[in-house]
Amino acid sequence: MKVLIIGGDGYCGWATALHLAEAGLDVVIADNFARRTWDRQLGVSSLTPIFSMEERLSHWHALGGRRIDFVNLDVTEYEPLCALLANVAPHAIVHFGQQRSAPYSMIDRDHAVRTLINNTAGNLNLLWAMREYAPDAHLVKLGTMGEYGTPNIDIEEGFIEITHKGRTDKLPFPKQPGSFYHLTKVHDSDQIYFVCRAWGLRATDLHQGVVYGVHTGQTAQATQLINRFDYDHVYGTALNRFCVQAAIGHSLTVYGSGGQRRSFLNIRDTVRCVELAVRHPAQPEEYRVFNQFTEIFSVAQLAHQVARVASDMGLDVRIEHQENPRTEKEQHHYHTVNANLQNLGLEPTLLNDGTLRELIETAIAHGDRVDRNVIRPAISWKPRAKAASSLSA
Amino acid sequence: MKVLIIGGDGYCGWATALHLAEAGLDVVIADNFARRTWDRQLGVSSLTPIFSMEERLSHWHALGGRRIDFVNLDVTEYEPLCALLANVAPHAIVHFGQQRSAPYSMIDRDHAVRTLINNTAGNLNLLWAMREYAPDAHLVKLGTMGEYGTPNIDIEEGFIEITHKGRTDKLPFPKQPGSFYHLTKVHDSDQIYFVCRAWGLRATDLHQGVVYGVHTGQTAQATQLINRFDYDHVYGTALNRFCVQAAIGHSLTVYGSGGQRRSFLNIRDTVRCVELAVRHPAQPEEYRVFNQFTEIFSVAQLAHQVARVASDMGLDVRIEHQENPRTEKEQHHYHTVNANLQNLGLEPTLLNDGTLRELIETAIAHGDRVDRNVIRPAISWKPRAKAASSLSA
Repeated sequence: MKVLIIGGDGYCGWATALHLAEAGLDVVIADNFARRTWDRQLGVSSLTPIFSMEERLSHWHALGGRRIDFVNLDVTEYEPLCALLANVAPHAIVHFGQQRSAPYSMIDRDHAVRTLINNTAGNLNLLWAMREYAPDAHLVKLGTMGEYGTPNIDIEEGFIEITHKGRTDKLPFPKQPGSFYHLTKVHDSDQIYFVCRAWGLRATDLHQGVVYGVHTGQTAQATQLINRFDYDHVYGTALNRFCVQAAIGHSLTVYGSGGQRRSFLNIRDTVRCVELAVRHPAQPEEYRVFNQFTEIFSVAQLAHQVARVASDMGLDVRIEHQENPRTEKEQHHYHTVNANLQNLGLEPTLLNDGTLRELIETAIAHGDRVDRNVIRPAISWKPRAKAASSLSA
Repeated sequence: MKVLIIGGDGYCGWATALHLAEAGLDVVIADNFARRTWDRQLGVSSLTPIFSMEERLSHWHALGGRRIDFVNLDVTEYEPLCALLANVAPHAIVHFGQQRSAPYSMIDRDHAVRTLINNTAGNLNLLWAMREYAPDAHLVKLGTMGEYGTPNIDIEEGFIEITHKGRTDKLPFPKQPGSFYHLTKVHDSDQIYFVCRAWGLRATDLHQGVVYGVHTGQTAQATQLINRFDYDHVYGTALNRFCVQAAIGHSLTVYGSGGQRRSFLNIRDTVRCVELAVRHPAQPEEYRVFNQFTEIFSVAQLAHQVARVASDMGLDVRIEHQENPRTEKEQHHYHTVNANLQNLGLEPTLLNDGTLRELIETAIAHGDRVDRNVIRPAISWKPRAKAASSLSA
């Protein structure tokens, strides 16, 4: 089975590429290193040093890993994308090739539009290229649990049966995305659902929770294979960021009360979920959504868990509640279904103290690479006037 | 009250600009004549000859019309848009500046992406420019009833109260848009709803039905003020196209069975609806949706109505069912609420034989301008293989 992984140089993409190769699939990575470029532009970088794709792959092959091919490709350029699909003739296309930071998309107009072009025009290119050159391939698209927002009802997987004024229909679950980045994921989902209806394409839309962890079985095999570990205010997501903060003696920065509840999963499960989706393809015309997460935590809960484990390790830890730079509810209902992947056989890797200790130890090992100036939030969701005052405070 | 009309050279935009000026508002039109460019590129044109903006405005002013200013502006260019908002300081911004044809967006990848950039990147530019330079202005955005698709439940105005597993919330009405064009309108709606929540902007999203008619009280005053009358397969919508077909002895082309039911309104009501929205602004942080239509018809019903009136006028008319180039249900539930505008005082202009006769007469008067080669559908919604065979048939 041949799998094309678009965005295979990124955090989830790289780990998935190695996992699928080890699982015996023929993997081709396409990436334009946009994420490395954005890092340089923003003056941030992974805590773990990331090797070049050439080094990554040559070490993977030297260790006897199954062959992985690489193509430098920008998904916003249509002709090369068509040529790639025609050449590779993939059975599955896993699409990670998107700008994945909510704060990045909120920096200013330029970053919001760039996110829209990269993500949603890129997605449109991919759908048209599939129509022309790979209409039977199975699209496995990375969406996000953030597409749903935090409605006051339980969140289903993509669709919900609604009875209204005596009639019933199963309709797309209403979405309330919380940033321009999250909006692009909703745009993509709507586009993909449409082309499944109109063109008979087949797709699985993985609405993924917040991913934590660094290592998978493959990326831990050699320094040259190591995965990203982001802790900065643009790309560092809650749990990983807390572990780095604990490691370097920085207070754990909880936005607002920390009552925000979100769905999480270990990167070891991300790669297994993608494998499950790839091995059990959607049918032609089928658009299905899998809510891809294993556990739900509040941000404050996670901070306390990290603080406890770090204290046990002898670290001096303080939790600090900061003014929330985002517009989001801090107390809300949050209950969501995630049956589809478990029905396909996913056995969740639950968060435990060992995982947190490993993350904090990894952070300590690379502590000399931390830039303390990029940790505190500097990007605001607020109206212009309020944004200026709150972030300078 | 100062109103900026983006897209004020188009079918709805031009009529609205004149109507609002006559109603005593200070109107500024912004347009980049994109629609005129697309017409040339596609080899189509309005049945009625459209004068240049310079001629349009000089005649309007010569007839004593209230002053209307014009700015040449492309909404995809951010800096000039910011300058415009800063200079005009509008109380309301009516945004018609979008590519509005579903078939256009389905031509190929290039036209789909162009529609996305023009509409959704353009919308994003406008929202950011409002955040920076006009945070108190009221955005009146033209959406479409097509955003909803044809669910098997009644369609509400933007939001629906859902009770699910014992909990209740009022959530965005689930949308199932039927083309890349319709998708952009959903993308825009999602963006606007978000910035109302995050930035406290205020917006009215007019989910408009299919507009028919040519004249309004103002555009009928002089040849130089005449409005567009589109009959081609890209821009000609059902009722207007049927009237032209009847006028020139072309069979009325009904796509499929014609059981598709849609919401309609006369352009005379479009302009009054926009005025009602502008005069009754949304509150800060409020995102509201008005379903802007007056009647529901099936496509076959309209064809029969046009055929009857045309026959009474002595014309020889034939209805022809064509293979449907679109992917859409031809038998479906369709019932939708449109209370908001009527609560603000809209008195619907209902479709009657007189209106149809006027439309057919206008078409006859300009019959020498009809190009019969651009009437039959040549753009398909179908997968590649099927599209090639069905359209050549």
